[in-house]
Amino acid sequence: MTQLVAVLGVGVVAPDTAVVGADDLGINRGDGVFDAARVVVDAAGTRVEFLDEHLARFERSHALMGMAAPDLAAWRGLIADAVAAWDAPGEAVVKLIATRGQEHAPAEPGASFLTITASDTTPCPPLRLVTLTTGRRADAFADAPWLLGGVKSLSYAVNVAVAREARRRGVDDVLFTSADGYCLEGPRSGLLALVDGVYATTPVEGTGILDSVTIAAVRAGLAARGTTVVDRLLTPADLVGAEAAWLLSAGRGVCDIVALDGTPLRTDAEASALLRGLAGF
Amino acid sequence: MTQLVAVLGVGVVAPDTAVVGADDLGINRGDGVFDAARVVVDAAGTRVEFLDEHLARFERSHALMGMAAPDLAAWRGLIADAVAAWDAPGEAVVKLIATRGQEHAPAEPGASFLTITASDTTPCPPLRLVTLTTGRRADAFADAPWLLGGVKSLSYAVNVAVAREARRRGVDDVLFTSADGYCLEGPRSGLLALVDGVYATTPVEGTGILDSVTIAAVRAGLAARGTTVVDRLLTPADLVGAEAAWLLSAGRGVCDIVALDGTPLRTDAEASALLRGLAGF
Repeated sequence: MTQLVAVLGVGVVAPDTAVVGADDLGINRGDGVFDAARVVVDAAGTRVEFLDEHLARFERSHALMGMAAPDLAAWRGLIADAVAAWDAPGEAVVKLIATRGQEHAPAEPGASFLTITASDTTPCPPLRLVTLTTGRRADAFADAPWLLGGVKSLSYAVNVAVAREARRRGVDDVLFTSADGYCLEGPRSGLLALVDGVYATTPVEGTGILDSVTIAAVRAGLAARGTTVVDRLLTPADLVGAEAAWLLSAGRGVCDIVALDGTPLRTDAEASALLRGLAGF
Repeated sequence: MTQLVAVLGVGVVAPDTAVVGADDLGINRGDGVFDAARVVVDAAGTRVEFLDEHLARFERSHALMGMAAPDLAAWRGLIADAVAAWDAPGEAVVKLIATRGQEHAPAEPGASFLTITASDTTPCPPLRLVTLTTGRRADAFADAPWLLGGVKSLSYAVNVAVAREARRRGVDDVLFTSADGYCLEGPRSGLLALVDGVYATTPVEGTGILDSVTIAAVRAGLAARGTTVVDRLLTPADLVGAEAAWLLSAGRGVCDIVALDGTPLRTDAEASALLRGLAGF
């Protein structure tokens, strides 16, 4: 079994079951939200890491999209049933998807389902990145909520397209940059750097970036050790001069960035180990 | 019957049939393409207007997304079967959807289906518009193919979000503007204006706008009458000073813009009638 599928209100179904109707706004318009969390199967059992934080972000994505609030108790029940049915060893990712509804039958609900998929992305390999512009200034989202900044929406075609562009250029992943030259985030990860002895990450406010659950976990862990993570816009030159820089995500954990647009970046094995521990990897 | 559903390789199915699997990139990432054309049922029978042009654009969207070329012969066959089964009187829209594939099973094909849905959007009412920025300069797409300019992708959540914003502001529709102050297009329509006696529309090159089949039809019709449509970036002030301005789409046809951000625009009934005729409405 490499993928499990479960439908809200129904439970676990055969993985090849079609779950989305032809009129659903999710497939017609990418009009829906998702969230994804790490599933760990080990001697202590099967668990979802940072589930509360992922559900809170899932709820925020609904609100930012003007969708009705999700029934988190029902989602928790479905997740518990799915995790109980998941028996593949090793790492996996649970992904929740909820769409706005039907395009031409507004009274009908949209698709709400989850998948659990086996993951081979941990431990994260070192990453060579290319910077690709979003075409927007770093403050473009401040007064433009219709641009859906910070929403994990289903409209992720650009995030997939940049991954293809990275492959074309022979590198591993992408760092989105703004039209005015700042580093933002990866297409599926957040940015953290150690610059002049200070941990820094991209501000969420106004930039449209996603509020990373993994960076929040690292931030809390560092705070408990007396170390502050500052919100600061960094340039590619800042990263080239940094002691170390990472992309963080729930699926892959803490990835060292070893090159940016062909320029090698420094790494800090001790800091990386600390961050991985704080992120639970 | 208000909606018909047909699946490529299968044919017409019951309209409530689920047609998209849980691992499909279309529902997971908005990673796929669509196109939509007008279906007319009248004394001459049932036909799809400008089908060749819509299929050509559908094929271009595939290419711009790096997807395998669609089997247009198979799509034509499916469309013919679906149109033959469609018996509702009046206007309708046929929409083709094709996704890239499965996210975790690359060898498996993605969903490919169509819907025909009864339409109540013609004749188009006069439109009061609000301008909303895309956050990008008008030339942002020139060297950034990963931003998927000109692609009718399934990642349309922003296009739906701006329609909600328009409703919140008590107007009918949206005119996207660039960060540097130019008019671009509607979320589901193209822009045409008559300025100082010259028809003008937004250039496709570099702006990321969609190549409108309806504007192309109008352009060809005007050319046959010796009138050129120029590609020119217009400002909101240009529209306020124009003799008339319109939003054009295959679904609604030629819509008069009667107000922009609360300022009344002039209309030209004779020009509107000419354009409607050229667009087949």
